[in-house]
Amino acid sequence: MTDRGGSPTKVADGASTDAKIPRTERGRRTLRKLLDASAVEFGEKGFHEASVSSITRRAGVALGSFYTYFDSKDALFRALVADMSENVKSSARSALVPNMSALEIEQAALAAFLDFAREHKEIYRIIDEAEFVDPESYRAHYETIADRIRARLEAGSAAGEFRTGLGELEAWAVMGMNVFVGLRYAVWSDNEDVRTSVEIAGAVNALLANGIAKGD
Amino acid sequence: MTDRGGSPTKVADGASTDAKIPRTERGRRTLRKLLDASAVEFGEKGFHEASVSSITRRAGVALGSFYTYFDSKDALFRALVADMSENVKSSARSALVPNMSALEIEQAALAAFLDFAREHKEIYRIIDEAEFVDPESYRAHYETIADRIRARLEAGSAAGEFRTGLGELEAWAVMGMNVFVGLRYAVWSDNEDVRTSVEIAGAVNALLANGIAKGD
Repeated sequence: MTDRGGSPTKVADGASTDAKIPRTERGRRTLRKLLDASAVEFGEKGFHEASVSSITRRAGVALGSFYTYFDSKDALFRALVADMSENVKSSARSALVPNMSALEIEQAALAAFLDFAREHKEIYRIIDEAEFVDPESYRAHYETIADRIRARLEAGSAAGEFRTGLGELEAWAVMGMNVFVGLRYAVWSDNEDVRTSVEIAGAVNALLANGIAKGD
Repeated sequence: MTDRGGSPTKVADGASTDAKIPRTERGRRTLRKLLDASAVEFGEKGFHEASVSSITRRAGVALGSFYTYFDSKDALFRALVADMSENVKSSARSALVPNMSALEIEQAALAAFLDFAREHKEIYRIIDEAEFVDPESYRAHYETIADRIRARLEAGSAAGEFRTGLGELEAWAVMGMNVFVGLRYAVWSDNEDVRTSVEIAGAVNALLANGIAKGD
């Protein structure tokens, strides 16, 4: 996000559930500034300590403009969770290139997620806080990701690359691997680990492809 | 825990970090009642809304007795997180029987965890809230589990059952699978899913053993 030196992210469609939809390009930029500033504010202070006035100050936006887009701090938080879900999705999508194998798609999606989490370390704290501030958003976040992974696993089975019978359970398992590897290596990483996102995703991919049992 | 109709759990050693150690059997029972009551209270209300007086009321223990064992609500919360970590560990251990293969150990440990989480659904909320209330406990909880899984993976490699080169990254991946499968099938389970913990752990075990790539 712009405040953290990263590249600015688009306003995700998902954010419009709780934000009023801007009609102009300038309005879209204002909404983006508010979402980015709120990510920093919620990430640093947590939901309860965060304040709308501090968010508008960080965003360089007038307090009145805030209420053009959001009814409350709660509405902004929900919009931010939806926006982060959407940005995780689009960052994974943008890492895909034509003719990738199903396994290559899993690796590229994870590497893109790790890059995203390294740049936006606050995402874990914000999604995790949603469990308490807005349990529906929290559950929707993971159910949506699991649905997407399941669709990829089923496509891989249909293409003959993955074994058959993969479904929801395997999707939740893959999501859990990715989330915890991200927590350890993108968010809690110490500087001693010099592996790139692609290398880490490659190690996870080897586990996912062939498991841990010794081959014959 | 006794309050939820399950069997009473022992006072874990880990709980003594923040609780004063009882010298008598009666003291141990009082401490156990306080920890069990606090799990229900923190699980239902969250840390901030939970109160010491409500916890002692649930426990049927005098308020003065609380301060015999804990300095504060914070100390109780830390002790509870350590106690839950310890109970997860001992429930997994008690599921092991002699001469299990390394894969069977993973399956039994996960099945035991799923049973534990079904009976103590509040564990997710409490551990997750530790990220905000006591970040060190939160990190220690997962680092400790990851260390234990890593030791099991290395033992499986040494025994020739698992491939070599498994380490911290694979341990975090396995932990993530287990945590998210537990969230979905033990905590968020709807009644439509009638699979037992052993069946769910078996499906995860198949994924862990051989991965998802189609065999030749």
